[in-house]
Amino acid sequence: MLTFYDAPVSGNTYKVRLLLKQLALPHEVLRLDIVGGGVRTPEYRKVNPFGRVPFIVDDGFALAESNAILSYLARGSKLLPADARGQALTQQWMFFEQNQVETAIGLPRAWRKFGVEQPEAVFEHYRPRAVSALNLLAWPPQRLPFELAVADVHHLERVNALERDVDRRTE
Amino acid sequence: MLTFYDAPVSGNTYKVRLLLKQLALPHEVLRLDIVGGGVRTPEYRKVNPFGRVPFIVDDGFALAESNAILSYLARGSKLLPADARGQALTQQWMFFEQNQVETAIGLPRAWRKFGVEQPEAVFEHYRPRAVSALNLLAWPPQRLPFELAVADVHHLERVNALERDVDRRTE
Repeated sequence: MLTFYDAPVSGNTYKVRLLLKQLALPHEVLRLDIVGGGVRTPEYRKVNPFGRVPFIVDDGFALAESNAILSYLARGSKLLPADARGQALTQQWMFFEQNQVETAIGLPRAWRKFGVEQPEAVFEHYRPRAVSALNLLAWPPQRLPFELAVADVHHLERVNALERDVDRRTE
Repeated sequence: MLTFYDAPVSGNTYKVRLLLKQLALPHEVLRLDIVGGGVRTPEYRKVNPFGRVPFIVDDGFALAESNAILSYLARGSKLLPADARGQALTQQWMFFEQNQVETAIGLPRAWRKFGVEQPEAVFEHYRPRAVSALNLLAWPPQRLPFELAVADVHHLERVNALERDVDRRTE
């Protein structure tokens, strides 16, 4: 049995939710309330010392970190290349996402969206990094072939979210 | 031929340097001067649109992102597990490093070390994240089996660097 620890407000859980649906993998869902501190309880820490979501337990095998979960669940499917170079490029984009996109775009967006107060200097710190990450994603020669689809899944959530924000502001 | 774009001041390049040595992989090194802007030139951007180091070109195959490079170079060696679960745990720790350790510990340390001015609010932003990351690394049940060695390589650099800092302060 595959158990998926989910929390709908988290962009990182969205990626796993999307992949589970794309691959039609049977699983059960345990929902946690991040905003109410549901991932900070001693009970959850005992199950998952990372104290975060997404998190999965697959027949007793526990795994944290959204992109490690995506790669694990997508192995052998059409969403992950089977060859070493295809897998390496997939990982390249996934590490780029967790190091530069999720931090510089995901965090500030979540703070604005949920009204989490932060010093303006912190937003200023992330702004040029966000621009740099978006420029790289827009660079034509870097478009991904279809086979690298699992590498797209995690960017999709951010881009969708940004587009929703832009739509809302221009309405 | 394997070409490694290196810059000795970068912790992320250290990881690749260490792995190349551990596995005794033949390669040539091209050194770039990060501080002098050597990764921001149009010439380098043409080779590597990510505009960063480490970066490798392996018989025409270009790859960015330090941990993607580590996994690619370590495949089939004793430093990377061959089974799906071992590889997933390796990736879990690598994503944790790039999302939480490199950002919260690596960046502030580099700024202090090289005298890069940053608002105190930015250091304050990273401090609790650094503590949280170190706590997780110290958690005994999370110790890694030997087979996950490639997952250790990138933590090693930060821990060594931190120990050197502590030694210096207590001398």
